[in-house]
Amino acid sequence: MDANEIIRRCRVLAEISEEPGVTTRTFLSPPMREVHKLVREWMEAAGMSADLDAAGNLRGVSGSGLRPIMIGSHLDTVPRGGAFDGILGVIVGIALVEARPNVPIEVAAFSDEEGVRFGIPFIGSRAVAGKPVMDAPVLDAIREYGLDPAELNYACAADCIRGYLEFHIEQGPVLDDLGLPLGLVESIVGITRMQVIFHGRANHAGTTPMNSRRDALAGAAEWIAAVECEARQGAGLVATVGQLQVEPNASNAIAGMARASLDVRHADDRVRRLCVNAATNAGKRIAARRGLDVEFVRLLEQPATAMDDAMVAALERAAAAAGYPVHRMPSGAGHDAMVMAGRTPAAMLFLRSPGGISHHPDETVLPEDVAAALEVGVRFLDEWEKLDG
Amino acid sequence: MDANEIIRRCRVLAEISEEPGVTTRTFLSPPMREVHKLVREWMEAAGMSADLDAAGNLRGVSGSGLRPIMIGSHLDTVPRGGAFDGILGVIVGIALVEARPNVPIEVAAFSDEEGVRFGIPFIGSRAVAGKPVMDAPVLDAIREYGLDPAELNYACAADCIRGYLEFHIEQGPVLDDLGLPLGLVESIVGITRMQVIFHGRANHAGTTPMNSRRDALAGAAEWIAAVECEARQGAGLVATVGQLQVEPNASNAIAGMARASLDVRHADDRVRRLCVNAATNAGKRIAARRGLDVEFVRLLEQPATAMDDAMVAALERAAAAAGYPVHRMPSGAGHDAMVMAGRTPAAMLFLRSPGGISHHPDETVLPEDVAAALEVGVRFLDEWEKLDG
Repeated sequence: MDANEIIRRCRVLAEISEEPGVTTRTFLSPPMREVHKLVREWMEAAGMSADLDAAGNLRGVSGSGLRPIMIGSHLDTVPRGGAFDGILGVIVGIALVEARPNVPIEVAAFSDEEGVRFGIPFIGSRAVAGKPVMDAPVLDAIREYGLDPAELNYACAADCIRGYLEFHIEQGPVLDDLGLPLGLVESIVGITRMQVIFHGRANHAGTTPMNSRRDALAGAAEWIAAVECEARQGAGLVATVGQLQVEPNASNAIAGMARASLDVRHADDRVRRLCVNAATNAGKRIAARRGLDVEFVRLLEQPATAMDDAMVAALERAAAAAGYPVHRMPSGAGHDAMVMAGRTPAAMLFLRSPGGISHHPDETVLPEDVAAALEVGVRFLDEWEKLDG
Repeated sequence: MDANEIIRRCRVLAEISEEPGVTTRTFLSPPMREVHKLVREWMEAAGMSADLDAAGNLRGVSGSGLRPIMIGSHLDTVPRGGAFDGILGVIVGIALVEARPNVPIEVAAFSDEEGVRFGIPFIGSRAVAGKPVMDAPVLDAIREYGLDPAELNYACAADCIRGYLEFHIEQGPVLDDLGLPLGLVESIVGITRMQVIFHGRANHAGTTPMNSRRDALAGAAEWIAAVECEARQGAGLVATVGQLQVEPNASNAIAGMARASLDVRHADDRVRRLCVNAATNAGKRIAARRGLDVEFVRLLEQPATAMDDAMVAALERAAAAAGYPVHRMPSGAGHDAMVMAGRTPAAMLFLRSPGGISHHPDETVLPEDVAAALEVGVRFLDEWEKLDG
């Protein structure tokens, strides 16, 4: 299977959606059945035996099946997403099985990484890593799909595999800006996610003088500027306020409440914590000066996850041997590799995202970059097999 | 009828609502029938003949009915509003008829000032001023209530009345801050209302470096701060961003679009226009620096409305004679008096809003302030009747 065929298959899967005309496919949603049918056929055509596990992951095993390397990514998408986020890594895995049929490989097509359906990400890889999600709605969905939640523990592969490798589009502009096809993920950034809620006093926009106001939105706006300023201080640091909800949210009413999200990421947990502290302090300072109350609700505190040094070094050698310069970089997004790294050596190879576009129908990938990833993958497997020895 | 009885009746009407437990009563909504029944009884008990006009205004006429002064305000409320906004002015009008039964007075209880049901304010007073709203949904609602839109033109009273007087709670903190019971409205501020839409590029919050972002919300936040700063420069100037809508509005996505409202008010139209220009220029400057596009949609451009000098002076004399200091002030909110002023001499007397609270269940008024308004009203009518002579 060449790069063009890999891209073609990704685009075929993108047509299978909960919404016509766009690509929306959440955890064990009805269109997932057709996706499973197709991917299973492709796995079997590549010589694998394939089956669904109890978490709805489609898993194909090749070669002897003993102590395989797992190559995986996810089949679900965000609403109105693209054709390559996740899916590409699954199809590249199948292509690598075709290229090296004798290497024991398990291709894992995870059922959920985006967490759209239940607000819980990584339902697929968490089961494979031996930490299955046991929330009742998830178990109900598993049952409705015809699977048996009682068998979730059997989905765990953590002790049977030698490592985990994931091919994924970068979903950012870094490689495109550098003019490079491939990136080598050294670590997946840690994330702090919180809600920051400013409480003021809703009042009439016409009758309340400027100096009598306790305007929650004006306070939030000043804070958003402070957060952005803070994030610009640190190399590799990103801080985002992407969500803002205002009450009463009327053009003729001063805002009584503004609820903002804050998302801070960095490969170094200390840098991230310093930024979060600075953002929190700025919020308190701004609120105090404006007579507002401010509330911080910590939603997620996820430390950075290092990829496996030996695997990263092996991938780097494979890329060098194939003649591709690779850029070592952190991954700013969470990935199944982050979950798997908790239980097995894990590594990721990024493919350039033209324009940095992802989670969007315009998301794409270049055929030459897919060819490069495939070649690096083959060379990596050749070295990996020897290491096994 | 004394001040306590006026307040009691307002609270009785506040119980009649579209939603149990709160006060929500929009244009010709079902509970308006019971309100009309009660207010009609009160009007008739005060010796008036009362009837509904085709715009759903309840109008009671006293004395000879010839060349009356109209005393009015509105019976509708905002959702989950207070007991006094509008209604107080109607009941004070009835109390003044009781106090001076021989003065020709028409009490107008307007059907709609807030504009909640159809997004069109002043449906009641516009009909009385001879500029009825003719939008199809409004006409349908009139028909459904059992009234005849063909008779809307007969609702016009502009040529039959000698003037229009409105008692209304201030809905702001100015009188309360000054420790004064009454305010004399000199003019109703002009309003510019617009939408300001920042267009950036939605992207992944984790994978997009700070310097590659075109963050629409960060741009809007900077602009909100600039607007607030600008408004603080001018005495009596208010500028409010009360509404903000963000897309995609996800904690892990950089905002691609932020749509803000802008509401600018001042008694001097030039001051208002200068502020709007400054806000517009700030938006363009901020957008250009950040690689955003910005769009300005003008929604409302309403010039300031002066109250009638002679009526204001007469009210001031009446207050002075009654021993109440009054504060001359602009009204920062629109009122039926603004609509009526286009066709007849008009004036407004504000009653202190404790805490500046309005459009809220906690909205209230002090009995001593209602008594003061009543006394000023009686003295005003006594002088007014002589002027008529």
